[in-house]
Amino acid sequence: MPVPGPGYAITVRVEAPPSASSAGDLTSAVGRVGGVITAFDVVESHPDRVVVDITCNSVSANHAQDITDALEALPGVHVRKVSDRTFLIHLGGKIEVGPKVPLRNRDDLSRAYTPGVARVCTAIAENPADARRLTIKRNTVAVVTDGSAVLGLGNLGPAAALPVMEGKAALFKKFASVDAWPVCLDTQDTEELIKAVEWIAPAYGGINLEDIAAPRCFEIEARLREKLDIPVFHDDQHGTAIVVVGALRNALRVVNKPIEDCKIVVCGVGAAGSAIVRLLLLKKPADVLAVDVDGIVHPERGDEDPNLAWIAAHTNREGARGGLHDALVGADVFIGVSAPNLFGAEQVATMAADPVVFALANPDPEVDPLEAQRHATVVATGRSDYPNQINNVLAFPGVFRGLLDAQAHKITDGMMLAAADAVADVVDGDRLNASFIVPSVFDAAVAPAVADAVRKAAGEAE
Amino acid sequence: MPVPGPGYAITVRVEAPPSASSAGDLTSAVGRVGGVITAFDVVESHPDRVVVDITCNSVSANHAQDITDALEALPGVHVRKVSDRTFLIHLGGKIEVGPKVPLRNRDDLSRAYTPGVARVCTAIAENPADARRLTIKRNTVAVVTDGSAVLGLGNLGPAAALPVMEGKAALFKKFASVDAWPVCLDTQDTEELIKAVEWIAPAYGGINLEDIAAPRCFEIEARLREKLDIPVFHDDQHGTAIVVVGALRNALRVVNKPIEDCKIVVCGVGAAGSAIVRLLLLKKPADVLAVDVDGIVHPERGDEDPNLAWIAAHTNREGARGGLHDALVGADVFIGVSAPNLFGAEQVATMAADPVVFALANPDPEVDPLEAQRHATVVATGRSDYPNQINNVLAFPGVFRGLLDAQAHKITDGMMLAAADAVADVVDGDRLNASFIVPSVFDAAVAPAVADAVRKAAGEAE
Repeated sequence: MPVPGPGYAITVRVEAPPSASSAGDLTSAVGRVGGVITAFDVVESHPDRVVVDITCNSVSANHAQDITDALEALPGVHVRKVSDRTFLIHLGGKIEVGPKVPLRNRDDLSRAYTPGVARVCTAIAENPADARRLTIKRNTVAVVTDGSAVLGLGNLGPAAALPVMEGKAALFKKFASVDAWPVCLDTQDTEELIKAVEWIAPAYGGINLEDIAAPRCFEIEARLREKLDIPVFHDDQHGTAIVVVGALRNALRVVNKPIEDCKIVVCGVGAAGSAIVRLLLLKKPADVLAVDVDGIVHPERGDEDPNLAWIAAHTNREGARGGLHDALVGADVFIGVSAPNLFGAEQVATMAADPVVFALANPDPEVDPLEAQRHATVVATGRSDYPNQINNVLAFPGVFRGLLDAQAHKITDGMMLAAADAVADVVDGDRLNASFIVPSVFDAAVAPAVADAVRKAAGEAE
Repeated sequence: MPVPGPGYAITVRVEAPPSASSAGDLTSAVGRVGGVITAFDVVESHPDRVVVDITCNSVSANHAQDITDALEALPGVHVRKVSDRTFLIHLGGKIEVGPKVPLRNRDDLSRAYTPGVARVCTAIAENPADARRLTIKRNTVAVVTDGSAVLGLGNLGPAAALPVMEGKAALFKKFASVDAWPVCLDTQDTEELIKAVEWIAPAYGGINLEDIAAPRCFEIEARLREKLDIPVFHDDQHGTAIVVVGALRNALRVVNKPIEDCKIVVCGVGAAGSAIVRLLLLKKPADVLAVDVDGIVHPERGDEDPNLAWIAAHTNREGARGGLHDALVGADVFIGVSAPNLFGAEQVATMAADPVVFALANPDPEVDPLEAQRHATVVATGRSDYPNQINNVLAFPGVFRGLLDAQAHKITDGMMLAAADAVADVVDGDRLNASFIVPSVFDAAVAPAVADAVRKAAGEAE
């Protein structure tokens, strides 16, 4: 099912005969093995040969090799070099640190550095709150990970997580002018992670926890929220929850159901699923059924994990038992943040009328979205190649923009609900339909709207 | 003795009568109380009044108030607002984080972030050394402090140290294209500081320790050098030592003395003084006398601090006793990194012929440089308003540029000596004289020369 995409684009430099048919032979060879050509550049032309850069999207390393082999197999063609465009843009890292102040001469230096800076230091020592005005703390967020749950790849460790954190920092700046910095911690011990974040906190106006495995992430976040006077936000939890709850509001508008009447199945109770359940409950749906690998969560399962115990106590009003397929029967909404290919069209058919299906497992959803569409009225995924992509980037930049502007000391449920509504409201009534329940990640209106909502909610929380 | 400087520049906005003599009255009033006007801008002009911004350098907060009072006292003049230019440029911090990669569309996003980034993460997990190629670790240094010895101000804590670390990061980029990031740690416990730096290390290609109090700084640096596979460099120690040893080489060229014949007094055995002694000893001077508040260091003092014990064992060959004034008698070189106003011209007169005096205590040197000049052939200070400013900025940007380029795992004495020679050699023979033993901090040739020397020394150390 995977589609060749730009995340796996390669550029193959080949020498070929200068014949008229040569270009056609090259492109046909790539096409035959399923590569999608996005650029064809002649870089050298000689009487006896041409040198061409063929850039094409592929699916995997094996697929890239197939494409290279297919080219090499052509008569008179020689592959000189294969470059991976994704690796190329990563060379040397994706973010940089730059001065915001001039440093052209002595006068500049004596204000930005010694001796002038001494007065600013003294002012902050006398009034610590001034750090939020006179330093990077005003606009800077730490993107903190231990590398224990990197994307869907698992426990790769802190160094291998760095490219994700850099990407996130780049998105923070691009979408909300927030300065974000990767903090990749070389420990996976809960107590040590808490200490590390406490110790690094003075320079930051907020902490974005990222790709930290459940259930450790719950305790780390809760303890840090108690200890620090800046907001702590685990994006895998709350970023996802904000966008899901916002998207669901619009999906329910499309199917014309009030949430108070809806039975909602949430599949997966890790970081994302748990946060979705908690935020959803504040919207007072008719019921929520949480489902994990052991089936529907209920108090008699005797889950010892405090997070699961809380969910058992606050969901499943009617004491349902069984597996995911049982839970789906009669449900109005399915929200999956779990594993690929758990059900098919026949299970969607058992849901209530006009079902809403958010199948967010990446890269392969819980149900094939094309299958789901046969019975569901609204379908959303985490993928960019289907309509209705649920993507955290709709939330985190604006959320932190709002928190920093409000100089907030914490983040509240009220701010997160306000952010969810703001995401939803960017899709106005004229544009809202079953294939457009969330704005594009490139919609420049999203982050300012979210920031504004968070700022207002922060003002009300004071 | 302080001179009005741009580190304490204020802009006073005044309303004044529109008479022809008004401008003269304003500037005279500022001059009478010792302010130095650097700009006079009319911002509004009306038939009955003008509004003028007077920018002037002052000495202190009290002096700024005197200037304001002097203006307010003029007939018909009203001070509207006083802005402190140093504080103005600090608003919101002095550095920012920016993307180095395009994020214009889906294709960009799928390479810099998900899904493409997953392959880069996997590559690093499989081959951790790739982090130095594919992430910010390639070009990034942590500027780490606990705020325990901020400039000459003492223990202000991590938040108040942040403006210095930001300034340092700005200088790293400006002078050597190094990305540097402030790490202000909210602990002053040696073991905790060591742990904190170990935990944050994966994202960095080098650690610049900064403004950490002695003797704690020695153990922290030594232990981190053992634990980490990236260079650890306490700038207060080694940055100062590199520039001092480089400057001394040129000073001894001016007075035409080989270092093997020189008796050198080093006053102050904190972070900077200890490192200067250690680096100097590698140059094999005739003798070094280290002096602290208890007088000349010698083994019979029974210093328990391991740093002082080491210095006692490796200096003072002739077992000299006494205080600083005793040490100076017959000395060829004085290097002070200690306290203001410890001696005068009469003590300089007791030194050997053609004495060299580096009086580096800031802002007030160990001996008034004008006094020292009466007998010394070469005088250097840490101040920008005298010739021969000894400034760490001549060393640290180039040192880390070289270390990062060499992908060095450690920094060696050989690299530091090479850096010192490189600083000295930027002043070529034609320009070298008693008033020009070190290049200007704005000399663009310095950092590349230092980087080149460190890279070469790193290559030889492999």
